[in-house]
Amino acid sequence: MTTSAPLSETEFVAALRGLSHRYWGTHPFHHRLHDGDLDERELKIWAANRWYYQCVLPRKDAAIISNCPVPEIRRHWLDRIVYHDGAREGEGGIERWLRLCQAVGLTREEVLDERHLAPGVRFAVDAYVTFARTRPWVEAVASGLTEMFAGHLMRRRVSDMLANYAWIRAEDLDYFTNRIDAVSGEGQATVDIVVRYSTTRTEQEAAIAALSFKCDVLWSILDAVERACEKD
Amino acid sequence: MTTSAPLSETEFVAALRGLSHRYWGTHPFHHRLHDGDLDERELKIWAANRWYYQCVLPRKDAAIISNCPVPEIRRHWLDRIVYHDGAREGEGGIERWLRLCQAVGLTREEVLDERHLAPGVRFAVDAYVTFARTRPWVEAVASGLTEMFAGHLMRRRVSDMLANYAWIRAEDLDYFTNRIDAVSGEGQATVDIVVRYSTTRTEQEAAIAALSFKCDVLWSILDAVERACEKD
Repeated sequence: MTTSAPLSETEFVAALRGLSHRYWGTHPFHHRLHDGDLDERELKIWAANRWYYQCVLPRKDAAIISNCPVPEIRRHWLDRIVYHDGAREGEGGIERWLRLCQAVGLTREEVLDERHLAPGVRFAVDAYVTFARTRPWVEAVASGLTEMFAGHLMRRRVSDMLANYAWIRAEDLDYFTNRIDAVSGEGQATVDIVVRYSTTRTEQEAAIAALSFKCDVLWSILDAVERACEKD
Repeated sequence: MTTSAPLSETEFVAALRGLSHRYWGTHPFHHRLHDGDLDERELKIWAANRWYYQCVLPRKDAAIISNCPVPEIRRHWLDRIVYHDGAREGEGGIERWLRLCQAVGLTREEVLDERHLAPGVRFAVDAYVTFARTRPWVEAVASGLTEMFAGHLMRRRVSDMLANYAWIRAEDLDYFTNRIDAVSGEGQATVDIVVRYSTTRTEQEAAIAALSFKCDVLWSILDAVERACEKD
């Protein structure tokens, strides 16, 4: 058995960034969303399903903390739970997403009771949480590196949605404007952690596979949303 | 199959409190510790092994957050991670325990590299983390109810250790004095969560079993420490 030499940091980061074409920014459903081609019903299905993804994120991040033996990483990662859940009720990323749901005409109740949730979205999102719970913490951190690709997409989303959906106001998109700030560093702090703790070629390849897996999670969410929109 | 009626809140809480005799306060090793019967070597073994328990607590608490779908519980529980890990380096319960280790004559290095760790302590502590990761979050919360019994024991510990070990100073026991404040409510907030989310008889019995399990974890830690002291 031959053991491959580790990639240099430049090669490793390039391999991670090279997965950008797998990011859901290029999914046909996102093109339709951005171009203003979704009707009110489709926009509701999108928002209610994407909510399920938002609401598991603090649990995914807690799984990473639970698996991580490095106190400084745990302290650093804790901010993410607060980001999603908020420091108090009525704050945080999940709450901002619920407000977007209301802006597109959903009641909080019909989002929270998951009546619009497509099975494929549940599978994809639950698979992501299971990944974070069961894989080494560095791989779970690497899976979050889709934030490298998120800033550009979200900036376009805010301008496109305001231009193409007359009933959406700027404040309805607080989730995205807030998130643009959060990912403005293009995930550099996360890249640094992944580079530092993936030192063997095997670990580097596992990190690349983790980010690839996460791209599949997001892509599958939109596949399932697209199918849910086609029905009835 | 007959389904038993749920216990009243009073009966349920009494059943939980009724496990106090299983708490490690009455373990023979703790009697020796309090009575001043441990020599320097035994005190070191105790502190270095107990450290392993302290250092997994934030990971146990993160597992609870990861498994919990209730945002307000997650927000509430997050403080525990900060309590153990500290808001920044050099703070927190783990750090205070490390200072106690140094006060009894251990170097930080020999604590952190786990050279004194007894296999039975590792098994017991790891079993506790696995329990929190794999059991329903309410059971994992209930397992932490040993904090109902902790205040009394820790107050006695501070006075007994200062009285019986000439080389221990008050500031060396910061871990305990700080912890006494943290558990001064005798776990009432935790009891309230367990009562609120254990509504069926089956759930109540699972919560009682969880606390019983936790008593066994702590007891087994001291059994293993006691054995480690007997050797060489």
